[in-house]
Amino acid sequence: MDKVRYGIVGIGKQGSFYTKILTKLNFMVKGSKLAAVCDISEERREWAKKNLKGVEIFDDYHKMFESGLIDVVMVETPHYFHAEIAIDAFKAGLNVLCDKPAGVYTKQVQKMNEVASEHSDKMFGMMFNQRTNPLYIKAKEIITSGELGELTRIVWIITNWYRPAAYYAQGGWRGTWWGEGGGVLINQCPHQLDLFTWLAGLPTSVMATSDTIGRDINVENDVTTYCKFANGATGVFITSTHDAPGTNRLEITGTGGKIVIENGKLVFTKNEIKEPEFSKTNKVFMGKPKTKKYKTSFIGQTLKNLFSQPPQHIGIIKNYTDVMLGKTDKFMAPGAEGIIGLTFSNAIHLSSWLNKEISIPLDEDLYIAELEKKKEQEKALAKK
Amino acid sequence: MDKVRYGIVGIGKQGSFYTKILTKLNFMVKGSKLAAVCDISEERREWAKKNLKGVEIFDDYHKMFESGLIDVVMVETPHYFHAEIAIDAFKAGLNVLCDKPAGVYTKQVQKMNEVASEHSDKMFGMMFNQRTNPLYIKAKEIITSGELGELTRIVWIITNWYRPAAYYAQGGWRGTWWGEGGGVLINQCPHQLDLFTWLAGLPTSVMATSDTIGRDINVENDVTTYCKFANGATGVFITSTHDAPGTNRLEITGTGGKIVIENGKLVFTKNEIKEPEFSKTNKVFMGKPKTKKYKTSFIGQTLKNLFSQPPQHIGIIKNYTDVMLGKTDKFMAPGAEGIIGLTFSNAIHLSSWLNKEISIPLDEDLYIAELEKKKEQEKALAKK
Repeated sequence: MDKVRYGIVGIGKQGSFYTKILTKLNFMVKGSKLAAVCDISEERREWAKKNLKGVEIFDDYHKMFESGLIDVVMVETPHYFHAEIAIDAFKAGLNVLCDKPAGVYTKQVQKMNEVASEHSDKMFGMMFNQRTNPLYIKAKEIITSGELGELTRIVWIITNWYRPAAYYAQGGWRGTWWGEGGGVLINQCPHQLDLFTWLAGLPTSVMATSDTIGRDINVENDVTTYCKFANGATGVFITSTHDAPGTNRLEITGTGGKIVIENGKLVFTKNEIKEPEFSKTNKVFMGKPKTKKYKTSFIGQTLKNLFSQPPQHIGIIKNYTDVMLGKTDKFMAPGAEGIIGLTFSNAIHLSSWLNKEISIPLDEDLYIAELEKKKEQEKALAKK
Repeated sequence: MDKVRYGIVGIGKQGSFYTKILTKLNFMVKGSKLAAVCDISEERREWAKKNLKGVEIFDDYHKMFESGLIDVVMVETPHYFHAEIAIDAFKAGLNVLCDKPAGVYTKQVQKMNEVASEHSDKMFGMMFNQRTNPLYIKAKEIITSGELGELTRIVWIITNWYRPAAYYAQGGWRGTWWGEGGGVLINQCPHQLDLFTWLAGLPTSVMATSDTIGRDINVENDVTTYCKFANGATGVFITSTHDAPGTNRLEITGTGGKIVIENGKLVFTKNEIKEPEFSKTNKVFMGKPKTKKYKTSFIGQTLKNLFSQPPQHIGIIKNYTDVMLGKTDKFMAPGAEGIIGLTFSNAIHLSSWLNKEISIPLDEDLYIAELEKKKEQEKALAKK
C-alpha cells in the first residue's frame, strides 16, 4: 500500500472539514487520499460534486463500503450512529477512524470494541485530536516516567467552550437528547474526558451535578463533578458552555510534584524528595519539600514539530496514515480507548440525574433507561 | 477612651504572637495597649513574667475579666472554648475579639451571637485576618458594585496549607476530634470559608468528600466540596494539608466577567456586554463577548496602604482599635459573621460523613451527634 484511501460517512460541518484536510492540506498528511464521501443529504452531495473533484460520491454508506474504493472509513455522523457504522465497516473488511464521542452510551461502544477486536487485522482509531497537544503529551511523559509519583489530585476547569444561543439555533438536533444524547459532556468535552482518564486513569466513583443555564436547550451546559480513584486520590472536573470568559486549567498533583497546564504553558514543579518520604523524615514544624520548576510552551513545541507531529485533527489523520503505512508503530489514539472517557461521561450524567454517587463500572442498562426517560420528557415537551 | 486595653486569654502559639503585635509592633496599632494576659499553664505564665513587662498576669480568666484592667478580651484558646469565653466576656461587660473559628459547631456560635446582640453596646470582632488582603477587598468591591453581574461560579483550590507529620506531632491535641473538632476545615481553612461566603454568599446545599491522607491523625486533611447557590450558581472548594506543592487559586465568574486571584495578582476580565444579554442579541454561530482586563497586585496595594491599612492580624487589631476609638466606622470583620463560614464548614463535614447532600440551614443537632460519634471512635482507638 502506498496511499491510504479514506471514505467519509457524513459530510456535515465536521466531515466537510476533513475533506479539506485530505485535499487542500494533503501535503501535511502525505500518503493519504480522499477517495469517497457519503451523505444522505442531496444538498451535501451537490456540494461534494462541485467541490471534491475526483472523489466518488455515495448516498448509502453500505455501497461505499462495498465499492472497493476505500481502505478507511471516517465516521462523521450524529453520535448515536457512530458505533453501528463502525461495526458495519469492520464487517465489510475496512479500517475505521471514528470521530468522538465513541458513542452515546457504553453498551453500544462495548459492542463496537468487540467487533473491532474480532477484526484485529484492521486499524481502529478515535479522533482524539487534543492528544496531539504537546503539553498533554509532556504531562503523560512526566506521569509515565514516575516523576510525578503517585497521583493525589487532578482538577480540570474547562469552562471555555462558550456557546451562545445562536450556536444551538443552528440545527434542530443541537442541544437535544434525541439528537446528541447529551450536552457539553457529549459534544464538547469528550476530549477532556479522554485526556483526564488518559492521564489519571478511570475513577472508581463519581458524584456530579449538572444543569441547563441561560439557553433554551434540553441537555446540560453546566457540570461539576468530583471523583475518587482506587489509590485514594480525588479529581474534580468542571465544565460549561455558558461561562464567559471561561477557563481551561488542568492541575495534576502527585507525591513527586505538580503539573499545571494553562494559557499555553505547562509548568512542572518537582519535589526534590517525594512528599511522603519528606513528611516522614522532616523535623521542622512547618517544613515543606524543596522544589524545582520546569516549563514547556505550547507554541515552542508546536512549531518545533509542525511537520513531524502536526497539531489537532491533521496530526491524528497523519498518525493514523503513518501507522497504516508502517512508518511508525506509535499509535496515538487507539479506538478501543474511546470507551474509557465515555464511561466517565456516562457516570457523570447518571450521578447528576439520580443525585447519588455512582460506582464504576456503572450499571449500563440503568444508564440507557434514564437516557430514554430524558428523551421521553423531551418528546412530551415538544408536543406542548 | 484614648487607649484600648487588651487582655488575652491563652498565650500559646497564637496568643503569644499577639503579645508581640501589641508590644513590639505597637507603632502599627496606635491607640492599643496590652494590659493583661491569662493562661492556665504555669510555664506560659513564667514566660509572660519574663517577657511582658508591665502586663498583668492571670491564671483564671474570670479574675482578669473582673479586674477592671481591660476593655477587650482576645480569645486564643482551643476552638471548643471560644464561644463560652466570649459569652462570659460579654456578660462581664467587655468587648470581644475572637480568633477563628468562631467555634466548632454552629449551635454554640449561635448562642455566642445571641449574647453578643444582647450586649450591642459592646464590640464583637472575629480574627479574619485574610479580610485585610487587598486582593479580596478588591474582589468584594467588584462584586458589590455590580460589575461582576450575577454570580455563576466560584472555585477555590486552596491546597497550599502544607503540614508535615512534624506539625501534628507538636501537640497531643493536634489532629484530633477532641482537641480541635476537625482538621483542615476547622484549623486552616476558616479564613477561606469566611472569604468564600463573604464574596459569594452562603450556599443552599453542599455535597462533599473528605479523607485523611498520609498522616497519623484522626481528622480530615483532604476535602473536596461542591455547593449550589439559590440563583443556580455552583461552587467548588478544594483544600488539603498534604499536597506539595499546593495551590491557592480563587476564580469567581459572573455574568459580567471573571475574577482570578492567584500568585499575588487579581485579574478581572470584564465583559463589555453581560453574558445573558450578549447571548440573546448575538447572531454569530461561535460568537463570544468582548472583554477587557484589569489587574491589581498584592504587593503594590499592600505597600501603598502599609500604615493606613496594614496587612493580616495587625490590620484586624488596628481596625478593631480604630473602630473602638471612633476613628473609623468601617468595621472589617464583625464577630456575628463568624457563623456564616462555620455553617458552610459544618455542612461540608456533615455531607462528607454521611455521604449525602446537606441543605443549609443544616440540622445542628445531627451535626453535634455525628461529631460526638467521631470523638467516641477516637477514644476507642486511643484505648487500643
